[in-house]
Amino acid sequence: MLTAHGIRHCKVCGGATNYVVPADDNRERATCTVCGTVHYENPLNVVGTVPVWGDRVLLCKRNIEPRFGKWTLPAGFMELGETTEQGAARETDEEAGAEYEMEGLFAVMSVVRVGQVHLFYRARLLSERFDPGHETIEARLFTEEEIPWEEIAFRTVREALQRYFEDRRRGSFDRVHTVDIA
Amino acid sequence: MLTAHGIRHCKVCGGATNYVVPADDNRERATCTVCGTVHYENPLNVVGTVPVWGDRVLLCKRNIEPRFGKWTLPAGFMELGETTEQGAARETDEEAGAEYEMEGLFAVMSVVRVGQVHLFYRARLLSERFDPGHETIEARLFTEEEIPWEEIAFRTVREALQRYFEDRRRGSFDRVHTVDIA
Repeated sequence: MLTAHGIRHCKVCGGATNYVVPADDNRERATCTVCGTVHYENPLNVVGTVPVWGDRVLLCKRNIEPRFGKWTLPAGFMELGETTEQGAARETDEEAGAEYEMEGLFAVMSVVRVGQVHLFYRARLLSERFDPGHETIEARLFTEEEIPWEEIAFRTVREALQRYFEDRRRGSFDRVHTVDIA
Repeated sequence: MLTAHGIRHCKVCGGATNYVVPADDNRERATCTVCGTVHYENPLNVVGTVPVWGDRVLLCKRNIEPRFGKWTLPAGFMELGETTEQGAARETDEEAGAEYEMEGLFAVMSVVRVGQVHLFYRARLLSERFDPGHETIEARLFTEEEIPWEEIAFRTVREALQRYFEDRRRGSFDRVHTVDIA
């Protein structure tokens, strides 16, 4: 389990913090020993897409750590000022440079150990032309048989791909998958 | 839109920060002028339930700010070390002290202006006994006709309740609602 003890100084005044349980709370929080500000640490959202062209899915070969050289779906940390869907679209632009239409929410995955929630949307590609950004070595379409399962960067990406192809065989994308990863 | 300029000191060394665009980034981030640490600010998740007993929904009258005295669904900030569903259950324990079984994911709502994503689950109450914690003045069941629409604490709660009763009339809870709130 992710333990939250990464805040050593106060973001307001720079004073040293202690981890103590505030009044009316039941968890230790980084609390400023000078000005008393309480700092909360919470899970982060990763937003991305499953971009589809016919019977093929778009994967991006990572040009950055972690998992340099492994294949991933376009995804990254959600930013302030955007919806989950806008964030997923932004990451698809940045990492694949694809033309697409956003479709529905596809999966919500809790990744407890790293304190993240991953939200994937389906996206329908409008062409086979990709113009990936600096985070991607190569963007390429794969049929289910061609997916390099041993070279997939993250477990959430593997889980999303498996469920996508299952739904495809079933002939229906009518449900949102919820997946918990310890 | 929420602007992220709340970090004035570095959490690692306490040094003063400046908001600058790091290399290979396209947004201003609080960057330490002393040790160089980059601090990211991202949306937070709020997790909760729509607890149901027959044709009635459980609401909690808030004993805390904001919206003291207004009615809400049990919900609160997701913590590290839990899944979205576990967080929703924890908030239901804390705010309502209800006995229930968790059912499926019900709604995912982006609240852009405040930088939050709200995730609601359906929960089936197992009794009419509630034992709310200190954050709740009163926990009570409401039919659709009895809902105090003008006294609902948050827009996401109103949106969730409206959709819950629509689905109920439709006779189906087979879809996850995705809602964007500017």
